[in-house]
Amino acid sequence: MMEVWNPLGTVGIISAFNFPVAVYGWNSAISLVCGNPVVWKGSPTTNLTSVAVTKILAEVLEKNNLPGSICSLICGGADVGSAMTNDKRINLLSFTGSTKVGREVGTVVQSRFGRVLLELGGNNAIIVSKDADIDLAVRSILFAAVGTAGQRCTTTRRLFLHESIHDEFIQRLTKAYKQIKVGNPLEDGILCGPLHTKAAVEAFQQGIKDVEAQGGKIIHGGKVLTELSGNYVEPTITSISHDAPVVHREIFAPILHTIKFQTLEQAIEWNNEVGQGLSSSLFTTNPSSIFEWIGPLGSDTGIVNVNIPTNGAEIGGAFGGEKETGGGRESGSDSWKQYMRRQTW
Amino acid sequence: MMEVWNPLGTVGIISAFNFPVAVYGWNSAISLVCGNPVVWKGSPTTNLTSVAVTKILAEVLEKNNLPGSICSLICGGADVGSAMTNDKRINLLSFTGSTKVGREVGTVVQSRFGRVLLELGGNNAIIVSKDADIDLAVRSILFAAVGTAGQRCTTTRRLFLHESIHDEFIQRLTKAYKQIKVGNPLEDGILCGPLHTKAAVEAFQQGIKDVEAQGGKIIHGGKVLTELSGNYVEPTITSISHDAPVVHREIFAPILHTIKFQTLEQAIEWNNEVGQGLSSSLFTTNPSSIFEWIGPLGSDTGIVNVNIPTNGAEIGGAFGGEKETGGGRESGSDSWKQYMRRQTW
Amino acid sequence: MMEVWNPLGTVGIISAFNFPVAVYGWNSAISLVCGNPVVWKGSPTTNLTSVAVTKILAEVLEKNNLPGSICSLICGGADVGSAMTNDKRINLLSFTGSTKVGREVGTVVQSRFGRVLLELGGNNAIIVSKDADIDLAVRSILFAAVGTAGQRCTTTRRLFLHESIHDEFIQRLTKAYKQIKVGNPLEDGILCGPLHTKAAVEAFQQGIKDVEAQGGKIIHGGKVLTELSGNYVEPTITSISHDAPVVHREIFAPILHTIKFQTLEQAIEWNNEVGQGLSSSLFTTNPSSIFEWIGPLGSDTGIVNVNIPTNGAEIGGAFGGEKETGGGRESGSDSWKQYMRRQTW
Amino acid sequence: MMEVWNPLGTVGIISAFNFPVAVYGWNSAISLVCGNPVVWKGSPTTNLTSVAVTKILAEVLEKNNLPGSICSLICGGADVGSAMTNDKRINLLSFTGSTKVGREVGTVVQSRFGRVLLELGGNNAIIVSKDADIDLAVRSILFAAVGTAGQRCTTTRRLFLHESIHDEFIQRLTKAYKQIKVGNPLEDGILCGPLHTKAAVEAFQQGIKDVEAQGGKIIHGGKVLTELSGNYVEPTITSISHDAPVVHREIFAPILHTIKFQTLEQAIEWNNEVGQGLSSSLFTTNPSSIFEWIGPLGSDTGIVNVNIPTNGAEIGGAFGGEKETGGGRESGSDSWKQYMRRQTW
Repeated sequence: MMEVWNPLGTVGIISAFNFPVAVYGWNSAISLVCGNPVVWKGSPTTNLTSVAVTKILAEVLEKNNLPGSICSLICGGADVGSAMTNDKRINLLSFTGSTKVGREVGTVVQSRFGRVLLELGGNNAIIVSKDADIDLAVRSILFAAVGTAGQRCTTTRRLFLHESIHDEFIQRLTKAYKQIKVGNPLEDGILCGPLHTKAAVEAFQQGIKDVEAQGGKIIHGGKVLTELSGNYVEPTITSISHDAPVVHREIFAPILHTIKFQTLEQAIEWNNEVGQGLSSSLFTTNPSSIFEWIGPLGSDTGIVNVNIPTNGAEIGGAFGGEKETGGGRESGSDSWKQYMRRQTW
Repeated sequence: MMEVWNPLGTVGIISAFNFPVAVYGWNSAISLVCGNPVVWKGSPTTNLTSVAVTKILAEVLEKNNLPGSICSLICGGADVGSAMTNDKRINLLSFTGSTKVGREVGTVVQSRFGRVLLELGGNNAIIVSKDADIDLAVRSILFAAVGTAGQRCTTTRRLFLHESIHDEFIQRLTKAYKQIKVGNPLEDGILCGPLHTKAAVEAFQQGIKDVEAQGGKIIHGGKVLTELSGNYVEPTITSISHDAPVVHREIFAPILHTIKFQTLEQAIEWNNEVGQGLSSSLFTTNPSSIFEWIGPLGSDTGIVNVNIPTNGAEIGGAFGGEKETGGGRESGSDSWKQYMRRQTW
Repeated sequence: MMEVWNPLGTVGIISAFNFPVAVYGWNSAISLVCGNPVVWKGSPTTNLTSVAVTKILAEVLEKNNLPGSICSLICGGADVGSAMTNDKRINLLSFTGSTKVGREVGTVVQSRFGRVLLELGGNNAIIVSKDADIDLAVRSILFAAVGTAGQRCTTTRRLFLHESIHDEFIQRLTKAYKQIKVGNPLEDGILCGPLHTKAAVEAFQQGIKDVEAQGGKIIHGGKVLTELSGNYVEPTITSISHDAPVVHREIFAPILHTIKFQTLEQAIEWNNEVGQGLSSSLFTTNPSSIFEWIGPLGSDTGIVNVNIPTNGAEIGGAFGGEKETGGGRESGSDSWKQYMRRQTW
Repeated sequence: MMEVWNPLGTVGIISAFNFPVAVYGWNSAISLVCGNPVVWKGSPTTNLTSVAVTKILAEVLEKNNLPGSICSLICGGADVGSAMTNDKRINLLSFTGSTKVGREVGTVVQSRFGRVLLELGGNNAIIVSKDADIDLAVRSILFAAVGTAGQRCTTTRRLFLHESIHDEFIQRLTKAYKQIKVGNPLEDGILCGPLHTKAAVEAFQQGIKDVEAQGGKIIHGGKVLTELSGNYVEPTITSISHDAPVVHREIFAPILHTIKFQTLEQAIEWNNEVGQGLSSSLFTTNPSSIFEWIGPLGSDTGIVNVNIPTNGAEIGGAFGGEKETGGGRESGSDSWKQYMRRQTW
């Protein structure tokens, strides 16, 4: 008895605006190594990037006497995405996007017994324990909640603070937020750039309204920066209950919800109570807490960090999350198996 | 960066009548090793077996101070299956059954972002090359097409015969079929027992009618054995076109469709043209043919055999198939990963 | 290209007195699974155990129609060991014993291009940091230094104490040592039994002399218990320089050398400066120290513990050590490969 | 319990004249990936190549702000090799060369409990079965026995021919040998270049003498080509007994010994009877013979081929052999483990 692995067939890749090349890069690289041609649809708002990358690939392929069509591109919107989802010739569909669309993509592909690799929404929390290194935590959270204007799937959106350090932490975090410069991110010293679209600005505004309607408070920020030309908003800190509906929703903008907790068990429970399961992090100097956190009763996210932010994908580690994040894993030790057909000989 | 594997949670197992214990056995064993409790629904026609096995397990668990509920049983039909499918508390659902029900199970569980392991229908073919060992092939096919009255997912249902050996092979196979004794399989020398239900007998009859309506011929058998008390039918050989609709359908009864071919490439294409993708086998003495068969342009089934029948699961090898067979794999080198939650630390 | 693994051939096992069955057990089990017969030589002082175990195995083998000779036993001393070492028919020799003999065994087998698996001497240290849980550390060290009268390869022989907790720790450890009962270990409440032979008692006495000659002091114990009939000695604590020659030598008796240190880096350097490289442990509550300890600049032993004693083999983990401990690894994820012949097909 | 892998330390590489860069390339690449600096000694007859390669590496390293000494070179002969062998600071020594020197290297490094990776002599056989594709076999053998003037460790040196095809095969092979052009291998159409040194020419001559003295015959070639300026010899075919001492010796020159056999079992026995165990190949069209050949009672070499020559290293497969070939494996699935230090945490 032996295991034989053959190429799977055509791999479809649907990627999102916020990583207009990276997600395509690692999916296509592994697909090609496994012997599969790829068909790519990038975000309709980043078509020029998609075209440029595909031209580079075509040139390399042709120089090596391989057809450029091995790396095909289709520019388009939901109609193209839907066609790829329904097409039986696409054996694996790697989809990065919202949970709402991913749920639809997943069921359609499953109903035709195709394979999916879903990278959907995140709602990532950081827990700051009573014994945490506060300096380290403040710096990490600033970067993880405000960097790329909160538009990463791994952005920190929820912050659980132990009651013993809560007030001091809020004070220091607010002070740090006050020093953030919003503007053109290509200029030096600018941490926070614009949101991607007007629709994102509206989602930000709706989020702020919901916070206030659901008993939360805006501690810092909360406004659209209309004085700047572009989709600029203020990096925002709220104070709100862990179970307010707005806290359980992914808003792709720099809004950070802060919540006070009493025990680590409680914070872990709250970390796990949302639908999404992508990334999470615990700041602590206590080894027992670390092992509780990564153990069977700890965090239920696919990426589990300690003393580092929730964002940033470690090359070499499997990337992806559980529950409404879709269950997919890209890169990492055995991810190639998803791109191949296993045969028991 | 490290990989951490934690238990997944509750594993649901829905098994079929034809292997009333084995499928539960290997699913529950690996689940328990991985730290997951299991909930089992067997076939509604094999409840006594399910109860007996569960009692044995309960005794062992209790002797070791473990709650018997770690291995729970629910007896019931489609209503119970549907409840398990929809229940978010069942993190992995391992389902063995028809493609029709499996498609429904798969999409429902996918829509709630749960995990499925599907073992659905097969429509397994054997190809007999011009250079095959004919004696070996006849004996293997007899066992694979008639054993357990054709009620295995790995039963051989299609037989592709090279034109140069076709007539002789049919003659020898028919001669062998004439010697098969149908009756109580607990008696010595009885190869072929009854079908499981009246409904299966009707499906057999419908299959025979369809063969005749679609241009095929009954070479041997084709009748219900009304003289025997029980659901007995004659092991049947047909001669029919590779693309007749009845040939592409799984009929859970001892009907073997024979088809003449000219080239190996043609036979492989026909092997692959059905919706199901469980098991297949090539009989040949030519090494080149073997490697063509197991290579990227060869068989597309999950289990690929050479010079042995399509049925029989090699312990240690991954069991399962592609396409409408559902894509699941049980047992084998890394199957435990399906029963655990991977975390990138 | 495929990897094919075939049985290696005959596996020789030479085991030591202190684990008269366990080492043979895991070597023979994996050998048999891999398809290899085994030839065993136990310690000449535990022949009755070897014979009893071999008889049990023979009975099982014969019941299953396998020749008892698959598990052969040769009772004898260095002459038998030497014959096994030189015999080309023994494809893998798994040797557990002293570094001195293991060096000889290793070079002889290497010179005939055979394989060896060496489990040789240990000189295992525990480091107690300034931030350690002192209660936990005292209890662990007591068990690791005194249990089985210091006659495990993983016994703790060196104890590095941070200067800030040194005096208190010595006081508490000495108090604990005073409560140890020496005697027949089959009786309740007896932690420390006899040494194995008169020669071991002499080695203990020589060790004590060397400690005193090399500038060390006996803090507790140090005497042979002549009032008891048998090879009984006092569990002993010394205070001595980290680089005294006696500290770098494995004495198979309950002598624990204590040494004061200033920085973790210094303690790690001293941990690593001896020839042996089997096991080591760090007691700390600081996560940074843990990751320094298990990282590239940390401990160089094959088994690296945190907050648990140096002794005790975790089933499922590779067991063995670097440098003069011989480099062998038994059990663990891929240890079976040592017992098989890899072929690239 | 977790497995931690840390860099091993300095890796020494001693390579041979015939692959003046490749062996260094794959050893140094994997060493650097694993975090180890390398020290290289090439063959004393290929120093200019070693220097050129090291300068390229130094440039790359320095551009990346890494010390060039990470890839150090020492030019020299046996004295340098001996110093590296004895130096405890070289944690792994990867040695490619003769069995005689490799035996010495292996025992010295083993005696200091270092690690070795030995790639020593080969004495590779091809078996041509009665059912082989003769055309394919003749072409393969010509390339494998004469290419690079027989100066590869994987060169075919022994040819076992089934009695039923023996005479015809010899006739066809001799005819092919007659068409071989010997000369400057940089010119078009020249298959066979010069030997590396005068000493190699003397070894060739001694081999021819030994063949004749031990009852063999020269079927083709056998002479030094003194009319050409350089170390040129005739590609040579002998006919001789399988157990003549000269047949069991590796002569690094294009001498091919042919031997007649009756059964595959006999040919396998003769294939395995020599001290070396690097590569071997079976030419057959019978699947049963293939599986006998790669099974536990088949070839005992590290590389086992079917219907391809003995030479040529498949990238991705473990390269190396058993017995006097030294047991080392370079490249392949898990070869990186040899370059790292495993720790059970």
